[in-house]
Amino acid sequence: MKLTLDLFKIIEKYPVHWGDMDSANHVNNLVYLRWAESARIKYFEKMGMDTSFSSVGTGPILGWQECKYIFPMTYPDTAIVGARTVEITEDRFFIECAIFSERHNRIAAISKQSIIPYSYGELKKVEMPDPWLEEIAKIEGS
Amino acid sequence: MKLTLDLFKIIEKYPVHWGDMDSANHVNNLVYLRWAESARIKYFEKMGMDTSFSSVGTGPILGWQECKYIFPMTYPDTAIVGARTVEITEDRFFIECAIFSERHNRIAAISKQSIIPYSYGELKKVEMPDPWLEEIAKIEGS
Amino acid sequence: MKLTLDLFKIIEKYPVHWGDMDSANHVNNLVYLRWAESARIKYFEKMGMDTSFSSVGTGPILGWQECKYIFPMTYPDTAIVGARTVEITEDRFFIECAIFSERHNRIAAISKQSIIPYSYGELKKVEMPDPWLEEIAKIEGS
Amino acid sequence: MKLTLDLFKIIEKYPVHWGDMDSANHVNNLVYLRWAESARIKYFEKMGMDTSFSSVGTGPILGWQECKYIFPMTYPDTAIVGARTVEITEDRFFIECAIFSERHNRIAAISKQSIIPYSYGELKKVEMPDPWLEEIAKIEGS
Repeated sequence: MKLTLDLFKIIEKYPVHWGDMDSANHVNNLVYLRWAESARIKYFEKMGMDTSFSSVGTGPILGWQECKYIFPMTYPDTAIVGARTVEITEDRFFIECAIFSERHNRIAAISKQSIIPYSYGELKKVEMPDPWLEEIAKIEGS
Repeated sequence: MKLTLDLFKIIEKYPVHWGDMDSANHVNNLVYLRWAESARIKYFEKMGMDTSFSSVGTGPILGWQECKYIFPMTYPDTAIVGARTVEITEDRFFIECAIFSERHNRIAAISKQSIIPYSYGELKKVEMPDPWLEEIAKIEGS
Repeated sequence: MKLTLDLFKIIEKYPVHWGDMDSANHVNNLVYLRWAESARIKYFEKMGMDTSFSSVGTGPILGWQECKYIFPMTYPDTAIVGARTVEITEDRFFIECAIFSERHNRIAAISKQSIIPYSYGELKKVEMPDPWLEEIAKIEGS
Repeated sequence: MKLTLDLFKIIEKYPVHWGDMDSANHVNNLVYLRWAESARIKYFEKMGMDTSFSSVGTGPILGWQECKYIFPMTYPDTAIVGARTVEITEDRFFIECAIFSERHNRIAAISKQSIIPYSYGELKKVEMPDPWLEEIAKIEGS
């Protein structure tokens, strides 16, 4: 299925810095994951999480991520990043970030990340907390 | 004199990424200079320069920069960056960037940079080109 | 199978910078991919590629990458990164990078990347060039 | 006076990453300040400071920095960074970092940074602590 912005409840915009480009004259591959990280953090905030990560309760850990590079962005441009939960299992959930080039009006990259609930009190992975499941359902409207 | 945004003809806004903070829980000192770089590049564009830096004509080289850190920014926030030329000598000019925290409505850092005209054809520093002087005068309205 | 350094013909070492840590007090997830990029570039050099990417011949493009985060590294430490080709198809090959923490003597992350041969002369993807196949075989000793 | 490595008691080496270069095909201006930061942190460690910055005692704050760019570094290369205290006042001290290109055997940049002692208990700047003065004297051998 074609990824379009209307599939995403959370949409963020980030300007491309000239310094985001590497010596191949394209936005460096890491920068897309910086944008995905920022959109992911925004998603956590919408879920009501404390993103100062200073609590001793249960917080999110990045377990894995991937990124498919489709179209090389360049300066100047603005990245439009949509984030949504695409899968939930017993002990983690997966956020997909679609990164669009505003200037070229096309998708530039798709990233997927697994988020693991971790108890900083017990120092171990835990099951998906009920409040997380409820907030995700609220955000995604399902 | 107090630096206020109305002193600047070129003003840019950059969102603070969560990942811009280092383990001291403040925006890392390098990030302010990324913002200053982006505002400087925007200034070059307003001067009519080719910021792909692919020409063989005369281009700008960063000779020196400084940054005074006044107030530590944190995520979430937006940096508002004003850029202006504050000094011109025979063989360089100085851009000042004032970086404001939008959330705290106060100045966070002041950076100054020396820009040296360099001839990529002759591979040497050259005098300030007349078109540069004219464009700076046009931007600054003086 | 357990990943150990003796599986890798190309091994690089990168010091952890204090500034590589984010406000969660761990090396930020992007930094592992910077190390993987540097090891990948080293692999390209061993294959005899021109890593200035200035030629008009066939060069490598990063099509996709993933990273599994196993153990959170911190400053001070040194990353030991092994790189090897783990799969070759008709139009791409896959490099695996295993990232070890020298201080803790254990694996911290595993990254995998797909590398696509791209003709800058014809501006399109091409089949795996024979010299690439030969050089990979030479490196991997197979 | 010409800066040479023998003037420095603390000398660190950092490899240039390919990704440290920007689209002007030089190591980006920020990267020199990353190296200076890492060398500065190493200097703090030699002074016996807790660089996790988690204590409630007196810690160092970066008040200002400058960098003079002399020679543009490129990948591949190794930065050799010497750090030393060049000035002490009542309420701060100044570290100078000289950055040399190992490949070209010449100085590439000189950075200077002001370090301000800050009491996290009293939340205010304080005078240079006696242990800091003693440790600096011990390091510099003066």
